[in-house]
Amino acid sequence: MLTIYNNPTDWAPLLERPALETQALQNKVAAMLQTIQKEGDEAVKRYTQQFDGVALEQLAVSEAALEQAATELPERLRQAIDQAYQNIRAFHQTQQQAVQRAETMPGVTCWRKSVPIERVGLYVPAGTAPLFSTVLMLGIPAQLAGCQTLVLCTPPRPDGSIHPAMRYAAGLVGCRQIFAIGGVQAIGAMAYGTASVPKVYKIFGPGNQYVTCAKQLVSQGQTAIDMPAGPSELLVWADAAANPTFVAADLLSQAEHGSDSQVVLVTESLALVEAVNQALEVQLATLPRAEVARQALAFSRAVVLEDAQQQVDFVNAYAPEHLIINTNQAHQQAEQVINAGSVFLGAYTPESLGDYASGTNHTLPTNGYARQYSGVSLDDFVKKITFQQATPEGLQTIGWVVEEMALAEQLVAHQQAVRLRLDALNPPV
Amino acid sequence: MLTIYNNPTDWAPLLERPALETQALQNKVAAMLQTIQKEGDEAVKRYTQQFDGVALEQLAVSEAALEQAATELPERLRQAIDQAYQNIRAFHQTQQQAVQRAETMPGVTCWRKSVPIERVGLYVPAGTAPLFSTVLMLGIPAQLAGCQTLVLCTPPRPDGSIHPAMRYAAGLVGCRQIFAIGGVQAIGAMAYGTASVPKVYKIFGPGNQYVTCAKQLVSQGQTAIDMPAGPSELLVWADAAANPTFVAADLLSQAEHGSDSQVVLVTESLALVEAVNQALEVQLATLPRAEVARQALAFSRAVVLEDAQQQVDFVNAYAPEHLIINTNQAHQQAEQVINAGSVFLGAYTPESLGDYASGTNHTLPTNGYARQYSGVSLDDFVKKITFQQATPEGLQTIGWVVEEMALAEQLVAHQQAVRLRLDALNPPV
Repeated sequence: MLTIYNNPTDWAPLLERPALETQALQNKVAAMLQTIQKEGDEAVKRYTQQFDGVALEQLAVSEAALEQAATELPERLRQAIDQAYQNIRAFHQTQQQAVQRAETMPGVTCWRKSVPIERVGLYVPAGTAPLFSTVLMLGIPAQLAGCQTLVLCTPPRPDGSIHPAMRYAAGLVGCRQIFAIGGVQAIGAMAYGTASVPKVYKIFGPGNQYVTCAKQLVSQGQTAIDMPAGPSELLVWADAAANPTFVAADLLSQAEHGSDSQVVLVTESLALVEAVNQALEVQLATLPRAEVARQALAFSRAVVLEDAQQQVDFVNAYAPEHLIINTNQAHQQAEQVINAGSVFLGAYTPESLGDYASGTNHTLPTNGYARQYSGVSLDDFVKKITFQQATPEGLQTIGWVVEEMALAEQLVAHQQAVRLRLDALNPPV
Repeated sequence: MLTIYNNPTDWAPLLERPALETQALQNKVAAMLQTIQKEGDEAVKRYTQQFDGVALEQLAVSEAALEQAATELPERLRQAIDQAYQNIRAFHQTQQQAVQRAETMPGVTCWRKSVPIERVGLYVPAGTAPLFSTVLMLGIPAQLAGCQTLVLCTPPRPDGSIHPAMRYAAGLVGCRQIFAIGGVQAIGAMAYGTASVPKVYKIFGPGNQYVTCAKQLVSQGQTAIDMPAGPSELLVWADAAANPTFVAADLLSQAEHGSDSQVVLVTESLALVEAVNQALEVQLATLPRAEVARQALAFSRAVVLEDAQQQVDFVNAYAPEHLIINTNQAHQQAEQVINAGSVFLGAYTPESLGDYASGTNHTLPTNGYARQYSGVSLDDFVKKITFQQATPEGLQTIGWVVEEMALAEQLVAHQQAVRLRLDALNPPV
């Protein structure tokens, strides 16, 4: 159950996240990546045998397996995936940006254009179940951006196959290159390229500590990554009027992810916390993943803060990945939030809506990174290239500014690039 | 002079960048960062004495020194800086984004809002001269974003002071916290915070290999950075009609940055290359930094490609930080560019316009990173937080989608967070 902190004065221990990554882990992962870079598919297959217990002849999922995915799914699940696809697509479409343009001085025009990253790779882990929702969350913005090469890696099932929901979701986002590869070997294969797997310029997706470490290591080379990742987090900010059954259900939906899930309740009401703790017991009784959830809850905190400003300050200091504001003043309070990944307002917006289908992305900054990182969006699948053009008149207008500044920075060739042109336009007498 | 490659078939060596960073460098920088984290100001002052030869009592630049900056500058330089400020501000203002909103299903609304990163740090190196233009390039988007804490670190001059142009530019962008700290010690001070220097969440700015390495190391912890950085680059794409004097001037403006500057000319015309090589000699004769430029040119390449498509492909494969398209079809060719940091069109748009005053940002991806990174913009000083709200009717509309998907992913508590709410709205009979 939640440990209760009643009007605590020392917040530091309550804001802490679990420490990640050891040097030993890093050394192990770095060695694997080196091997993959050197040996390619052979190393990938060896690691797949070693870690997934599967001997694969072919790493790529066949075209036939992609085609028949829809027929292997229950009709209602297929419809649900279709609806989620529509919603996520609709919201991510609002993120498309027209060319931005300004004539900064007469004859000097600047503009900025979004251009898709040519080659991107998606990693989707398979925990106890196929996480096909992540295929939608990463694949839809890639599809909207227009990335030419879209590679998906996900661990094989014991028989070497990929779950039909994964294949179906991949089909929806236009991904035809799926590989049954998990873990460090997937990250290495996409970062360096192998005979089977195309090399990509940016890798997206969640994963365990090995995957996260591999992503960080390849990001020191030529491959970009979406963001650093830690265990998933939820902070519920509730008032005395909140329904404790709803609050408990939300906390459990986070806690069931893993024993390292971060679950926090911030409220003015000690009575609510006590009611939530009771509701947790009731709901845990029938939950399949109760054991995992109990382990996460053992480290979870209920922070009672009577002062309204202190509640805001605590939320922003914690900078949660997911924030549910289950209060009567959710809109006003949301205006005060400056550090969070994704925010859920009111009593009828559980986090699971955003995890699957409301339209927002579920790949979000954890570990306090919401202070400086955004969740995944269309922005992450494009580069924004700037352009500028000066007419001869424009150069005559702006030239002196550049000459003055270049000379003050002692960069005479920079000044000359302007001066020689101005002299050509108006030859000195 | 440029080494000429006439219709080369093997492009790989021509696309190469210098190898960066050694393990020895990394170990040295990591040790310095640890010392700074532990000892704070004391370590920073010790390193400043050791590397800059300056014994500072106070690291912060005084309010008085900020106030009097304008009076210490020549009037025309001050006006040039003011004009550049206006231009850069005007272009970066086009990057401001309104809240994006979509009702993805009836009663389910999602939106996304830009929120400033609270605390940012700017690093501006001082080479042979004060690089005050970089203060504008990093400070203007920070100011437009509305970052609350804006810290600037730059190395002290031999007398411990900071050049008035730096102080003046800092004043324009609303930065009141300037510290006379350079190198690894600046990055460490901003990443961890010291008694004098506020801790920031994200660090921006160029630097030598020590600074770059320090930024990469702190970015593995709690601090974000703008982008990985390498030596500066320029690719000039010119046709037979290009003025060789202009082309040579542009190449030199890149070459004078440092002996590791990357300079490439791509053209259909061998005659142009030969004329450019002659013009280089003429212009080098009077250039103060000729020695540096000659060293850079010794490793520089002119790639002659008769085929128009091959020219495009080479440019995109190289992915230059700066690209000048000095041709008669600059606009059509710019449409084909998919990998570049910033692009300069036509005969009258030298790179130095963008370095100082056209309005675009000059902090751009090097080392081939233009394939997947954008230059610095307003985007980098904000997080984009997503929000969503479902009404009771909205939850009744979307609920089944979430329930189906959660059960298929075997996350029953996710399904329950919806089900318990739906049951409360419509109690089961």
